[in-house]
Amino acid sequence: MCEKTVRIGLVGLGTVGSGVAKLILEDGDRIAAKTGIRLELACVVDVDTESKRPVNLPEGVLTKDIDRLLGDQSISICVEAVGGTDFARDLQLKMLAAGKDIVTANKALVAEYGNELYRAARENERCIAFEASCAGGIPIVSAIRSSLTANRITGLYGIVNGTCNYILSNMTARNEDFAVALAEAQEKGYAEADPTLDINGSDSAHKLAILASIALGYEISLDDIYVEGIESISKDDIRYGGEMGYCLKLLAIGQVLDENRVSLRVHPSFIAKDSALARVDGPFNAISLFGSAVGQILFYGRGAGMMPTASAVVSDIIDVALGNSGTSFKHLKLKPRSEVKPLIAGIDDIESRFYIRVMAKDEPGVVASYGRILGEHGISISGALQHEGRGPDGTVPVVITTHITQQRNMTAALNDLEKEAIFSGAPVCIRIVNIPEDKD
Amino acid sequence: MCEKTVRIGLVGLGTVGSGVAKLILEDGDRIAAKTGIRLELACVVDVDTESKRPVNLPEGVLTKDIDRLLGDQSISICVEAVGGTDFARDLQLKMLAAGKDIVTANKALVAEYGNELYRAARENERCIAFEASCAGGIPIVSAIRSSLTANRITGLYGIVNGTCNYILSNMTARNEDFAVALAEAQEKGYAEADPTLDINGSDSAHKLAILASIALGYEISLDDIYVEGIESISKDDIRYGGEMGYCLKLLAIGQVLDENRVSLRVHPSFIAKDSALARVDGPFNAISLFGSAVGQILFYGRGAGMMPTASAVVSDIIDVALGNSGTSFKHLKLKPRSEVKPLIAGIDDIESRFYIRVMAKDEPGVVASYGRILGEHGISISGALQHEGRGPDGTVPVVITTHITQQRNMTAALNDLEKEAIFSGAPVCIRIVNIPEDKD
Repeated sequence: MCEKTVRIGLVGLGTVGSGVAKLILEDGDRIAAKTGIRLELACVVDVDTESKRPVNLPEGVLTKDIDRLLGDQSISICVEAVGGTDFARDLQLKMLAAGKDIVTANKALVAEYGNELYRAARENERCIAFEASCAGGIPIVSAIRSSLTANRITGLYGIVNGTCNYILSNMTARNEDFAVALAEAQEKGYAEADPTLDINGSDSAHKLAILASIALGYEISLDDIYVEGIESISKDDIRYGGEMGYCLKLLAIGQVLDENRVSLRVHPSFIAKDSALARVDGPFNAISLFGSAVGQILFYGRGAGMMPTASAVVSDIIDVALGNSGTSFKHLKLKPRSEVKPLIAGIDDIESRFYIRVMAKDEPGVVASYGRILGEHGISISGALQHEGRGPDGTVPVVITTHITQQRNMTAALNDLEKEAIFSGAPVCIRIVNIPEDKD
Repeated sequence: MCEKTVRIGLVGLGTVGSGVAKLILEDGDRIAAKTGIRLELACVVDVDTESKRPVNLPEGVLTKDIDRLLGDQSISICVEAVGGTDFARDLQLKMLAAGKDIVTANKALVAEYGNELYRAARENERCIAFEASCAGGIPIVSAIRSSLTANRITGLYGIVNGTCNYILSNMTARNEDFAVALAEAQEKGYAEADPTLDINGSDSAHKLAILASIALGYEISLDDIYVEGIESISKDDIRYGGEMGYCLKLLAIGQVLDENRVSLRVHPSFIAKDSALARVDGPFNAISLFGSAVGQILFYGRGAGMMPTASAVVSDIIDVALGNSGTSFKHLKLKPRSEVKPLIAGIDDIESRFYIRVMAKDEPGVVASYGRILGEHGISISGALQHEGRGPDGTVPVVITTHITQQRNMTAALNDLEKEAIFSGAPVCIRIVNIPEDKD
């Protein structure tokens, strides 16, 4: 078999871009021997051509001139490793117009403008490969798009943000405050200087939008996804939940409900300590999928980082070069927004179990109060926990877990609990998620 | 996008074949809507056309006549779901000669005759897709062949036989004898009436041969794999190992050693109780892979069963229909046997930690004896366990764990231990496997 040489253009020489360049330059021979595809890094574009990078580019490859890349007809595949949405969107549209196939790790862009970009790619008879946009090195996009095609996906539960998982793991293991755990994550390089998009759940929502879209075959909009972050999680609730058998994770959830309605949400979730996802610690990602034929299937690995992400990008490049991505892309059919919108369930419609903490005055009537209020909203109590002793302000934390109820009932009950004089401040409420375990 | 109809031939209407037929017939519309590929079950061949099956075939599809399938030019993809090696090998060669692409779940055939069949496929410009041959519904073949192409795979640790894992899980959880756990596995349908190929490790070796071949890019022969089964595992050793922090699993191991040498082996393995694979219970499979760029990555799911296996077969059919399998197959380059053979390390050359149990007479000199013998062979003791009290024959079990040593040293030491008068019978020896954990 003879080797086929494919010339690659790369825009953005940050962490991901440097990893991609490194992998192509250092492992090119091995990749060529294994696949018959010789990757040639023809042009790298970055606004900064001076700073030292963890990779040495061949003379003359690095440039500030994007037109050199766009105008080079011999470059067939471009990696967009710029990040962000405005410039990157414009750039990808130009790449497609210039006849390039695109490989990207840009989850925000794919989540927000994927439908538009897919259309532009189709019009230009090009493809966009985006394995690296979700869960770094874990091949979850390819698993859903190709290996599990025979299945109807009925549920998806993912830990898809390593920053949040690192923070929550440390808050759990060391009984640390959020701020302390965040500072440590930043120090170790697991959280950015501005961690907003990670900790407020947006990044997880981006990934859920992408995964749900290909799993369901729907055009998904970020508006379809209900999002809560982990910014206001207290170590006390992690500890109390732990005493009741639960572990706190930020989950991205895609759930097919009755009559094909779908719930898409990202929120802190108490899950059973012995469930598979509860054991995913530190910066790792994991996704548990449920397929109509395959049952439960779980993928675990590094969801971020230079080389894991580069692994996904370069594997995608090879898939594009072989023509496989193009074929799969052509056959990716997504139900249009107009049909999808009525199928998305609002957060009020979902059913869940709940963990509630109220701060109660240590006087008679506490149990009667929350018992009455929850009862009035048809909510059945599953467990309760009240340690002896009181805090400095004279209140005591009372923790209650409920059986399954509708979110709208819980929201109404929380309102009433807040108004009740015997309780101080707004109650804390965290969903308890029963991940279906495929057991025998 | 218009739909493309693909006519499918299926040989063998047993468990796997019935699942494949069921999925094609019952989910055809959904699959067509999602992929643009309309699967049409054109012809099903089985020697038994009378028995009731869990699927209702359309009139006229089922036949005993293999030539009807082979001669039908409109059938482009054939599923070989016969199992076994002699008839199936002949059948696959005929399918290829008749111009059909093949999808198979037949691990024994792919492991034993894969190299020959791949050549035949190439000569006929056809492809063989074999995702379902390893770990049922887990897309591990596609992950290695396509999603992780950018990586050099340095290690593979798999629980790839659900029967053995079910038996060992029950022996562990309930302190059951092997025979009791086996009978239960048979009753529940997790073990065949003749369980030999599962419990002696052959089935795991078949899967390891296939996975190692694609992970390393080598033509692998079953002779390259050292195999021990679980038939002679005693519940006592599982218990003692458990007391020392280990859990017993039958592992399929592919390990890249120094200078590109490779160790391929299947044997009972004590692994740390808190490692990810230790938590894989019952009939489930899991594979932990280590890639040069991606780090550790783990796949978990159902390794067998009608629908999980059918999930893999039908996804493969779609991949073949799209042309992706053909492209990937064409680019699958395997280093020939002549070059691979010198790279395979013998079992004597591997390094491992070990668990040893000797039955010792309860008299002075026991510790001195095993201490001296292990010392003479340069083996360092890591832990020891001797419960008080003696068995009915007056001997007591003494359990020793060692630091890393070469297998050849351990084999020599076991010989000397057996000859020592203070010990009764041959010592029990089980390898302790340190699965590298990618932690932060």
